Amino acid sequence: MAAGVYIQASCGGEGFCGKCRVQVEKGEVESAPTPKISEEEFARGFRLACQSRVRSDVEVRIPVESHLDRRVIARTRERVSAGRRVSPQELESLVLGWCFNPALRKQYLELEPPTPKDNRSDLSRLLLSLKKKFGFEGISVDSRLLHKLPFVLREADWKVTATLVQTRMESQLGEYQLRGSRRTKLIDLEPGDTTQTHYSIVLDIGTTTVWGQLLDLNKRQTLAESSDYNPQIQYGDDVITRIVYSQKAGGLKKLQESVVGTINGIIRELIARAGVELSRVSHMTAAGNTIMTHLILGLDPKYLRESPYTPVANYIPPVRATELGLEVGEHVHLYTFPSVASYVGGDIVSGVLGSGIYQRKPLTLYIDIGTNGEIVIGNSDWMVTAACSAGPAFEGGGIKHGMRATTGALEDFRIDPVSYEPMLLTIGMVKPKGICGSGLINMIAEFLEAGVITPNGKFNTDLPTRRIRSGPDGKEYVLAYAGETATGMDLVLTEVDIDNLMRAKAAMYAGYVTLLQSVGLSISNLEQVVIAGAFGSFIDLERAITIGLLPDLPLDRFLFIGNGSLLGARLISFCNEMLDDGERVCKMMTNIELSENPHFMDNYMAALFLPHTNGAEFPGVSARLAAKKAI
Amino acid sequence: MAAGVYIQASCGGEGFCGKCRVQVEKGEVESAPTPKISEEEFARGFRLACQSRVRSDVEVRIPVESHLDRRVIARTRERVSAGRRVSPQELESLVLGWCFNPALRKQYLELEPPTPKDNRSDLSRLLLSLKKKFGFEGISVDSRLLHKLPFVLREADWKVTATLVQTRMESQLGEYQLRGSRRTKLIDLEPGDTTQTHYSIVLDIGTTTVWGQLLDLNKRQTLAESSDYNPQIQYGDDVITRIVYSQKAGGLKKLQESVVGTINGIIRELIARAGVELSRVSHMTAAGNTIMTHLILGLDPKYLRESPYTPVANYIPPVRATELGLEVGEHVHLYTFPSVASYVGGDIVSGVLGSGIYQRKPLTLYIDIGTNGEIVIGNSDWMVTAACSAGPAFEGGGIKHGMRATTGALEDFRIDPVSYEPMLLTIGMVKPKGICGSGLINMIAEFLEAGVITPNGKFNTDLPTRRIRSGPDGKEYVLAYAGETATGMDLVLTEVDIDNLMRAKAAMYAGYVTLLQSVGLSISNLEQVVIAGAFGSFIDLERAITIGLLPDLPLDRFLFIGNGSLLGARLISFCNEMLDDGERVCKMMTNIELSENPHFMDNYMAALFLPHTNGAEFPGVSARLAAKKAI
Repeated sequence: MAAGVYIQASCGGEGFCGKCRVQVEKGEVESAPTPKISEEEFARGFRLACQSRVRSDVEVRIPVESHLDRRVIARTRERVSAGRRVSPQELESLVLGWCFNPALRKQYLELEPPTPKDNRSDLSRLLLSLKKKFGFEGISVDSRLLHKLPFVLREADWKVTATLVQTRMESQLGEYQLRGSRRTKLIDLEPGDTTQTHYSIVLDIGTTTVWGQLLDLNKRQTLAESSDYNPQIQYGDDVITRIVYSQKAGGLKKLQESVVGTINGIIRELIARAGVELSRVSHMTAAGNTIMTHLILGLDPKYLRESPYTPVANYIPPVRATELGLEVGEHVHLYTFPSVASYVGGDIVSGVLGSGIYQRKPLTLYIDIGTNGEIVIGNSDWMVTAACSAGPAFEGGGIKHGMRATTGALEDFRIDPVSYEPMLLTIGMVKPKGICGSGLINMIAEFLEAGVITPNGKFNTDLPTRRIRSGPDGKEYVLAYAGETATGMDLVLTEVDIDNLMRAKAAMYAGYVTLLQSVGLSISNLEQVVIAGAFGSFIDLERAITIGLLPDLPLDRFLFIGNGSLLGARLISFCNEMLDDGERVCKMMTNIELSENPHFMDNYMAALFLPHTNGAEFPGVSARLAAKKAI
Repeated sequence: MAAGVYIQASCGGEGFCGKCRVQVEKGEVESAPTPKISEEEFARGFRLACQSRVRSDVEVRIPVESHLDRRVIARTRERVSAGRRVSPQELESLVLGWCFNPALRKQYLELEPPTPKDNRSDLSRLLLSLKKKFGFEGISVDSRLLHKLPFVLREADWKVTATLVQTRMESQLGEYQLRGSRRTKLIDLEPGDTTQTHYSIVLDIGTTTVWGQLLDLNKRQTLAESSDYNPQIQYGDDVITRIVYSQKAGGLKKLQESVVGTINGIIRELIARAGVELSRVSHMTAAGNTIMTHLILGLDPKYLRESPYTPVANYIPPVRATELGLEVGEHVHLYTFPSVASYVGGDIVSGVLGSGIYQRKPLTLYIDIGTNGEIVIGNSDWMVTAACSAGPAFEGGGIKHGMRATTGALEDFRIDPVSYEPMLLTIGMVKPKGICGSGLINMIAEFLEAGVITPNGKFNTDLPTRRIRSGPDGKEYVLAYAGETATGMDLVLTEVDIDNLMRAKAAMYAGYVTLLQSVGLSISNLEQVVIAGAFGSFIDLERAITIGLLPDLPLDRFLFIGNGSLLGARLISFCNEMLDDGERVCKMMTNIELSENPHFMDNYMAALFLPHTNGAEFPGVSARLAAKKAI
């Protein structure tokens, strides 16, 4: 960690995931024995990093399977599956009725210098001019600005640019506030005319990755984008492991500081890429799930994990960014999107805002698929939401050779219907290293369609291929032999892996059905499905339907919006009034705790089949599979 | 300074006032020669502290004349002169139409604990309960509270006390805001029911002394009082010297930190005296002149001293007290009274508020006499104000044996009309050490009535007394011979001293007259004179009229209110709505720069006489003096 090297560390240092294997090449390391490292490997210097203490200067090799490659975070998908994907420009028009009207604005002023006849205070002079020239009344002032005020005015010969924010800096919390109650606050003053250089930063603070964009508040443009892994993954892959870590001594502070460090790196990159000055950034907006939001603000997430799962707060007032350790101007505040519940966070609110589903009549299913899958169902009249603990399979967790979607991950897959030989495509077009979540979906759909596996997820051992064999974990299919892989080991998919993916997709599907049932509706009532999130962007729509992860609806009802967090964050940066809409969206959503719902488990059991125990729920898939079988 | 010893240091370390004499008894000190220390004194170890560098461990004696005695700050005046003095209880009823309704309030709540069916956030639960039980809507929240919120709630078994403030925490600056626009902000949460223990602290930050009072916000009582010298006097006696010092490297920080240190001491004393817990203090309010207000907040006072004399701001939003270094709860904010101009500060606004003159028809002169004398004239329709640079004579500055009003200062004085022998009374009833401002007024009035000095301030050398003699600075009167004094030196009053006092009183008087002229009125129109401030409390009304410092009006028109700063600060602590009145008072006052007024100098010259060149302006005094002369 201290060296800034990313390695996989799913379990947060507990020692049971076995992903942080490293090979000690020089120096002394003291390690407890672990079943994750064989005796032979131990002799060759392999250790679990989290179970080792460094006792001298050491040289350590990070094997490919333990490595996270930051470059692939920002890859784009060239091969587009069915379903609509919209361009960034179109994306911002999914939501209706907004105009370019940023809460942050700059105004250039030429003041009359004081005279013995008019020696009002510097602040009064400035406020009077803002009133006379631009009609601003009742402006409040950030008291920290007063320290530099007299000097900026005089050094600039009374020609200055004021930065103002139209907002509830002391936010109305927990209550929806009518439009029009905003106030103007003066937050910065710069010498000369800087009105043409005015920026804000939006952030998507995800459990795995952090994304940032630099916005031009004059031109309504995204000037630069940057991303990085959330360094908290070193303390645990998923939000639960992070909450556990936060309860250790100093844990919360470490988690907070590590993600702030990464955001500072992203800010530096954004500024450098766009070639702008940091001091011209006036505001930051972040969207993240409830746990990420608690952690960046240094709020203790302890009770998010203990039943009945209560956040500290859903609406959090903007915080001075420098107080969090963010390296920006002292006047910059960080606004975090409000959350709905412990496991339905600001990222979802932001995406629902950006997709405009709260403004339209059609019944929409909005989903963000992942370890913690989030589901929203509703329209302009009502919305219900739930979080769905799908487990880590979509991110390669619990899969024997599972890995994140980075270089070497097996991403696309075809199988020869006669020889049952595989055709593999990896991210970065290199030797295969493992299987990422979207690859796993493709593979299992392909196996199902080809009859390599049965609808209950078991391998058909009657097929004429040696690739299906018995391994240490039961039946498995050899995707690539040792000589063909980056790890030098056979790359296999096991029945246990298939089972884990089925559990994950069943949890998501049971979530949709249970939420719909809670409002007296069913899958067939859905008029639109909006898929948000990085994982969603990379899945093949038809194959995801084939395995029963997505409902069997006409393909043109599906819409991919990509990063919904950034979408909503951009919208509220560009349009003051959208902030109200964001909070209205948050208040509209009724959270349903699936774990408390008696029907959820039934729906889950029914979905533990490919695509589903009730074929009628997947008429298209069922018909196709029946037709293939008939051949 | 580092040892916490108070010594006089009027010039702020420049070396020209000569008041910081110390006597080195042991150790090595390197000092530049100075005309303030004679060769003989130098040989005996006398040095100016500010001109010396310590080169080894040393033992230093502080001579009585250099010593400031903190105990006498809080003395009360037993011998009351003419004019009305009101009791503390009556004081608070000078202003009309206020009721006990503090902006700070505590509410005890018993919350329903969260359940799986009701797992809203901790903050939402709290806000909902405040709404249901007490009708508070649209509450904003101090984001720092969120860090402890979940723990306080659970440790207290959901039985808690919320501290709320009804205020514009993000204050409306520079504009008068109508009543009723306040919002409620949640600033603290305590376990259990603490509603019965709720306090605030009010401060008068004076150039020379700092006063604090602890208020009970339940019982409308002042529980304790404490005071100390403003330690900034070590960096200069008057505000101008302090501004000069603030421009040295690190000077502003030292000035800010030193007064904060003293306030912290006062807070500790208040808490200890009243036997309450510091955590139960929810708010602080301070009134001070514009320079003191800038310094406590760390705002640079540079341009207060340079023409055209502009403050950074007159209205300053409340600041989190801990950010200033004040040792109170993190939720406590410091509100500083707004100022009118560079030399008419929040102390005057506070006093004018407390005296209620802005509510009544009678034309009132409100004065605070001192080095920087402040004058307000007006009534419920209008007010004009001016600052008047009277010089340091009222505080013993520029007077050969002048000193502050501490132990040993000659305070009262009678002269035998036959022998011209003096009768002296000192503060603390000890051997005389010097002459304080009020003693000086008494002495000169007495001399004038007895014919020892003429109306132009010169000694009558024809009198049969050896006490009038020629000294190194011209003619002088020996008040006490070396054997009778604490200093072991003859204690004298010189013609130069008399001249300095005449200049000071002439500046004040010219101020009243010039201000009155600016609105087309004269002294005879005054229906009331309100005298505020520590110095004012100790002057003898009739003698102050005799020398022409106060106008020659019927004695029952004079009202002494004492510390006006604390009076107004108490009022706004006890009554939320008085905060609006304070800001209205501030906006009502029109500041007149006397230095820019062509008539001021004429009025000043006319007043350089005892009582005045125009005897008709002082009919009572003139008649009395004429009658005595006739005898």
